[in-house]
Amino acid sequence: MNKPSDLPIDALPASAELTRAPLPGSRKTYLAGRLHPALRVPQREVALSNGDVVWLYDTSGPYTDPQASIDVTRGLPALRHDWIDVRDDTEAYAGRVVAEADDGAGHARRLAELRAQAAGLQRTPRRARVGHNVTQMHYARRGIVTPEMEFVALRENLRLQAAREAAREPLNAEREGRLRGNPLGAAIPAEISPEFVRAEVARGRAVIPANINHPELEPMAIGRNFLVKVNANIGNSAVTSSIEEEVEKMVWATRWGADTVMDLSTGQHIHTTRDWIVRNSPVPIGTVPIYQALEKVGGIAEDLTWAIFRDTLIEQAEQGVDYFTIHAGLRLPFIHLTAGRRTGIVSRGGSILAKWCIAHHQENFLYTHFAEICDIMKAYDVSFSLGDGLRPGSLADANDEAQFAELRTLGELTQVAWKHDVQTMIEGPGHVPMHLIQANMTEQLKHCGEAPFYTLGPLTIDVAPGYDHIASAIGAAMIGWMGTAMLCYVTPKEHLGLPNRDDVKQGLMAYKIAAHAADIAKGHPGARLRDDAISKARFEFRWADQFNLGLDPETARSFHDETLPKDAAKVAHFCSMCGPKFCSMKITQEVRDFVTQGLSTKSSEFKQAGGALYVPINARTNQE
Amino acid sequence: MNKPSDLPIDALPASAELTRAPLPGSRKTYLAGRLHPALRVPQREVALSNGDVVWLYDTSGPYTDPQASIDVTRGLPALRHDWIDVRDDTEAYAGRVVAEADDGAGHARRLAELRAQAAGLQRTPRRARVGHNVTQMHYARRGIVTPEMEFVALRENLRLQAAREAAREPLNAEREGRLRGNPLGAAIPAEISPEFVRAEVARGRAVIPANINHPELEPMAIGRNFLVKVNANIGNSAVTSSIEEEVEKMVWATRWGADTVMDLSTGQHIHTTRDWIVRNSPVPIGTVPIYQALEKVGGIAEDLTWAIFRDTLIEQAEQGVDYFTIHAGLRLPFIHLTAGRRTGIVSRGGSILAKWCIAHHQENFLYTHFAEICDIMKAYDVSFSLGDGLRPGSLADANDEAQFAELRTLGELTQVAWKHDVQTMIEGPGHVPMHLIQANMTEQLKHCGEAPFYTLGPLTIDVAPGYDHIASAIGAAMIGWMGTAMLCYVTPKEHLGLPNRDDVKQGLMAYKIAAHAADIAKGHPGARLRDDAISKARFEFRWADQFNLGLDPETARSFHDETLPKDAAKVAHFCSMCGPKFCSMKITQEVRDFVTQGLSTKSSEFKQAGGALYVPINARTNQE
Repeated sequence: MNKPSDLPIDALPASAELTRAPLPGSRKTYLAGRLHPALRVPQREVALSNGDVVWLYDTSGPYTDPQASIDVTRGLPALRHDWIDVRDDTEAYAGRVVAEADDGAGHARRLAELRAQAAGLQRTPRRARVGHNVTQMHYARRGIVTPEMEFVALRENLRLQAAREAAREPLNAEREGRLRGNPLGAAIPAEISPEFVRAEVARGRAVIPANINHPELEPMAIGRNFLVKVNANIGNSAVTSSIEEEVEKMVWATRWGADTVMDLSTGQHIHTTRDWIVRNSPVPIGTVPIYQALEKVGGIAEDLTWAIFRDTLIEQAEQGVDYFTIHAGLRLPFIHLTAGRRTGIVSRGGSILAKWCIAHHQENFLYTHFAEICDIMKAYDVSFSLGDGLRPGSLADANDEAQFAELRTLGELTQVAWKHDVQTMIEGPGHVPMHLIQANMTEQLKHCGEAPFYTLGPLTIDVAPGYDHIASAIGAAMIGWMGTAMLCYVTPKEHLGLPNRDDVKQGLMAYKIAAHAADIAKGHPGARLRDDAISKARFEFRWADQFNLGLDPETARSFHDETLPKDAAKVAHFCSMCGPKFCSMKITQEVRDFVTQGLSTKSSEFKQAGGALYVPINARTNQE
Repeated sequence: MNKPSDLPIDALPASAELTRAPLPGSRKTYLAGRLHPALRVPQREVALSNGDVVWLYDTSGPYTDPQASIDVTRGLPALRHDWIDVRDDTEAYAGRVVAEADDGAGHARRLAELRAQAAGLQRTPRRARVGHNVTQMHYARRGIVTPEMEFVALRENLRLQAAREAAREPLNAEREGRLRGNPLGAAIPAEISPEFVRAEVARGRAVIPANINHPELEPMAIGRNFLVKVNANIGNSAVTSSIEEEVEKMVWATRWGADTVMDLSTGQHIHTTRDWIVRNSPVPIGTVPIYQALEKVGGIAEDLTWAIFRDTLIEQAEQGVDYFTIHAGLRLPFIHLTAGRRTGIVSRGGSILAKWCIAHHQENFLYTHFAEICDIMKAYDVSFSLGDGLRPGSLADANDEAQFAELRTLGELTQVAWKHDVQTMIEGPGHVPMHLIQANMTEQLKHCGEAPFYTLGPLTIDVAPGYDHIASAIGAAMIGWMGTAMLCYVTPKEHLGLPNRDDVKQGLMAYKIAAHAADIAKGHPGARLRDDAISKARFEFRWADQFNLGLDPETARSFHDETLPKDAAKVAHFCSMCGPKFCSMKITQEVRDFVTQGLSTKSSEFKQAGGALYVPINARTNQE
């Protein structure tokens, strides 16, 4: 039997090389702010062979900008430093002393070596000055449009106005009407303004996870009236060898569209690898602090204490973690509700806390200390991700009383957090059959005051081990359309093992599909521009444009190469499925010419023929 | 530029070996009929390590039965021979003379060699005797429960009664109520009886594709009140080398769950390879006869005639093709509706017919000759799959007037077909965003009298080349729940190239997921048994059972091996994600023990504590 130390938390094979090439056909562009002219909001510009350009939302940070000079031992530039500084409500302070136990027990010599790699990444932490609250929600409620908010607005708009102005065709009113999204209760404006972002953050309907100790972050928003976001989970390797190797996991995930990354590391060196990741991450980093707290008590759930947990929160807040999963809704009286379940408690954090509650026969200390946790969150602007420790682990347990009792409690806690102006989102399931998904969204909206919902899938069936990214992408797309703001990805290795590099990419592709399908269905302005562009390219046999506008240009090109490897085929006016004679798109173009011709020169014939166009069924033609 | 002859229609790499091993942990069992005691209805029995068995629907035919002796040069046993014979309404006849042109032009020497391989597969065709109609619909409407209908009923029931009797736990009423499906207007009974199958076929709400010249077929039903079915497309290789190689494509697809297979071959040797496939196929075979008709006129759409098309229908009906895609709804007056589309006409058959209509400025000859086509269909019991030649090829064209005008015409034609007692299903799109999917189903139900809907996806976004199996599985699952009876799979190569062996499997996995998700959501009786069994196995760390109950046991096991290769790990009471200390399922079992203990020994304490369980928020524990 394997010992725990043999179990890597993440099986991404070592790659000491950062992936830095821009995606094919793409270059990074930056948009300046109006309220805050110094803003440089990144976008990916795809140049098409017909001279058109398409602007895409870009999560990859400076890594895909060849102009950016990157040194992972120094970290990314602190682009938010001045924004935070000018607010004049924070103070630098010595911070908590980093203990050896923060990196797990033992291996002191190795640890020294690893910490040396992080030496250039140490920053003096900041926190709110006494009497101040530094959350984006606090500013929003006071009417302040922060640079973070304008940054978000510019990102979300996808340069829609510029794209419309650059378009060669006028908007087709019939088509726009027919394709109009169905927002199912969302309130998505035609254009995302900085003031709209502020209003959404103020009422708690959106969060901008942005710890003041993570100034390297490119701000993004999570909310039902914004683009649906995707989170990818990563974790430390059992045998960490270099900073590049750990940072590359995050870089790889953001390259393929991860909007946030959760660092779910356990075991050794977790404090130090977190330094590496946060300092180099352009996206918000989330964690589940109970994992590290458990390490500090040797893995014995019963030995957890509020003091140790509190210390861990401060440790991670000082490092710059942007959101914490906190399982405060798993209350002692709910635990017996899981006893008759098919699959009990499947959340790691949930089961740790359930064990603690049972062992002490006391209420969950995260629930009883919730107000104190809020005090920590608002001093750094760490956002809550209120964890669903009782989420169903099988269809059989979906939507049961254990799950919904916890959800209602998360709603209660949301109100407490909002009293502290602490940004809050709510985690959701799990395994849920399609016909029970809507109830999850409805209950969440009802009890949690429209705080952003952040779901894991849900998986719509239980029988797809090896393909759970697909089983869950179905549920994710549906719940995204219904109003879920962020989707936590699932990889093909779910239930089976640790994801490798390709699994991470496969999981992200499935979830970018789900998120985009949801954006189109709910009618996010501009979301369909990319689909229109790729379909036009497809119809016009601009193969390279089709590849480059796809979610994964490299795979699309390589698949095409398998059948038609010659370069000439990339401009051929037929495709591999049918060949030149049979190509339906080619024939359609001929049909279009015929019709155009027919409508002009044959119009009199048409009119004369009149009702004869509607030949009665079974009438004979002269073909017999 | 590649010449057409360089373009293989199918890129499955040659495999002269038939795949015949049963899936891991599985063996073939057969159920006898009651009305027709000679029936042997196949099921896959999965034996679990705890002594339980689970019975699964099995599409793989005799190939996965080690007892079956198979010789592809002789074909499968004609299990329906006696059923057809005893009805005494058919006659053997000489049949049409097979011409060289049936196999495309040229290559006479090669052809002789290939036809020699098919020598043992030649059967004397049968047709309805004059004045008779041999369709399952015709029998159904006369109140006859055919062996085909009882066979279908036994398959669809998944041995639900036996499974319930064998279960060690009583049914959990709370769980069954909570998980009850939402049929969205479907009328699924608690048990599928032979009489129910008859009634569904009689009213046209289900089809049993079963050409009397395909007696090797294991009957199956397509209808909204049955399990959702999946079709896989295959095609001939450019360089056909052996009968085994072509038959293996079909065997491979049915191994992974294809309920029907469409042979979309073009080019050379298509008549002969069709003999190979039909004679060896346990599942219904569909074709698009216009493809072969076009070959016969050298690929020039304008040269197509009714006479050539009619001859092709009879040729294929005599060979035993079970359903024909017929694009009879693409009418001349609809063609101009496509001129303003983003992607025009993307259906191959649709574009061929549109070109013919325009060239001749005449109504589609499939529409004008529809009654004569019905006469052919009913003489062999070939089912209609009325083709959607105007399906949208991009989101921009979804649900437009061209698409819906054709759909309404398909409804009109369905009524004509039903007057002839010809079984009929309706093909559907294509590319449709999530929020426009319901309208497709609603319009189809409204206009086509609940004739089974058979959709390609739909793809919910356009930007996923390389991953369109996922983009379309989302739409497929949703429309399957809404009432679609069969889903035509999409492979990762869609839009890019020809699927290879692994692509076929990937496409099928995505679609088996979609179909199963739909079955669960609509509440097909017994569909959830497999999910319950796998979740129980998962929770009890029965790893091998989890693999074997999954859609793809081999991939599930290999993924687990990547992280925990040792055999001991297959019975370890923890999983690779968390390791022994962190395993949430392990901790849950401890929690369950605590709760059980607590509820018995601590009940008095619980009662005394009373309201104290509900500790007010922010109350402190003694952990500080």
